[in-house]
Amino acid sequence: MKEITSAQNTTIKETKKLLKNKYRQQSGCYMIEGEHLVEEAIKHGQRLDKLFMTKDFMVNNEVNEWLTQADEVYEVSEAAIKAISSLPTPQGIVAVLKQTSQVLELPLQAPVLLLDNVQDPGNVGTMIRTADAAGYAGVVLGKGCADFYSNKVQRALQGSHFHLPVVQADLNTLIPELRSQGVEVYATALDKQAKSYRELTPTQPFAIVMGNEGQGVSADVIKASTQTIYIPMPGQAESLNVAVAAGILMFAYPI
Amino acid sequence: MKEITSAQNTTIKETKKLLKNKYRQQSGCYMIEGEHLVEEAIKHGQRLDKLFMTKDFMVNNEVNEWLTQADEVYEVSEAAIKAISSLPTPQGIVAVLKQTSQVLELPLQAPVLLLDNVQDPGNVGTMIRTADAAGYAGVVLGKGCADFYSNKVQRALQGSHFHLPVVQADLNTLIPELRSQGVEVYATALDKQAKSYRELTPTQPFAIVMGNEGQGVSADVIKASTQTIYIPMPGQAESLNVAVAAGILMFAYPI
Repeated sequence: MKEITSAQNTTIKETKKLLKNKYRQQSGCYMIEGEHLVEEAIKHGQRLDKLFMTKDFMVNNEVNEWLTQADEVYEVSEAAIKAISSLPTPQGIVAVLKQTSQVLELPLQAPVLLLDNVQDPGNVGTMIRTADAAGYAGVVLGKGCADFYSNKVQRALQGSHFHLPVVQADLNTLIPELRSQGVEVYATALDKQAKSYRELTPTQPFAIVMGNEGQGVSADVIKASTQTIYIPMPGQAESLNVAVAAGILMFAYPI
Repeated sequence: MKEITSAQNTTIKETKKLLKNKYRQQSGCYMIEGEHLVEEAIKHGQRLDKLFMTKDFMVNNEVNEWLTQADEVYEVSEAAIKAISSLPTPQGIVAVLKQTSQVLELPLQAPVLLLDNVQDPGNVGTMIRTADAAGYAGVVLGKGCADFYSNKVQRALQGSHFHLPVVQADLNTLIPELRSQGVEVYATALDKQAKSYRELTPTQPFAIVMGNEGQGVSADVIKASTQTIYIPMPGQAESLNVAVAAGILMFAYPI
């Protein structure tokens, strides 16, 4: 274990760059933060490139087993952890992991969630977490979605990407492929052909498409889909938050 | 219409204070921001204490009708609107409104949503918006909930409090009162007595209780409730985001 006291240390400065998308892409790495996420990563066999912990954190947690799961382990000062943390109050533990390319296995054994241009990182992370809870086979991030490896997405998804594949793909290519495999694709939309989700009995496996917070699912993706569906709202709100809508739909059809 | 060019103007400085809870309580006022929210307020007969708009906003929007709905109207500079905005990119329009005490009318005509110590402003706002979409009769914020008049809650609820009453109350007093009126109260929890929400057929009207993001619904509130319910999760995620869970439950029982 090496010791780092200064926030100006080279390793700290290099790691700090991972807060930016550009450098995450260049390096093929990303950061996770907090005891729960690091524990989830290790539990699911993820090797850690780097593990940074404060003395305080190591004294108060059982970390011995974790030390063997990381290529490099650092005991860092509060100032150093603050420099690489994306939180106002750092939790004393940060890890660097390699980005892994995950694959959606066909034929599907369960439904999948397709996201089309969902821009808010909290929404993307929350929907992946919900898909995980619902027992979905995977989540596909289409064009324009928030960067999956950003700290905000990672925070909201709470380690769910260690449980199910999260794949980046062009939905305009993927949807025809899914449909040729017999997967029905239901896109959320408010067009005239849209069917209430309550009247739909999807045949397994199927896919649900959620769209951009303001514009919804794009016209091309709707065209490629089997059917459009909507959530009837008896009240006065004009719309639902997209992550809430996704939760309602995913739990409406037990798998 | 008065003109304000400086961010140091007294009215601007006074208004800026409303970004803080303490001053909102002292003054009994709060702020809303953006065209949609101001439009919703006016549409629902809310009088505006103050209305601040940039020249640019007034040129690009139909604001004539709004001018008569505000006691004081100000044309302000970009610098001045930036000083009172809670957004990184201000939308050119901010209004100050009086806080109004809303009342939950008994007997209930529809279900209500009770929030026990829900701390995240985004979650509180999103749940009010979802309750509005679901046609609920109202939302009650119990102890420990995020400040309803904060800009973050206001942003997430998108004007839904102009559609249904949002009331602050002690749930330990309110729940027995509701039950004495024949309202069944279902609290989300993972205790042994909890029933799957899929097996529940609630009799109208009823109430659903959602709890704190980490600790769930408090023991006292659970004790006062009719029955505990839970959402079965076939996947691996340990929990659902509270606003997603609320959405699943509110849309599970059509009103």
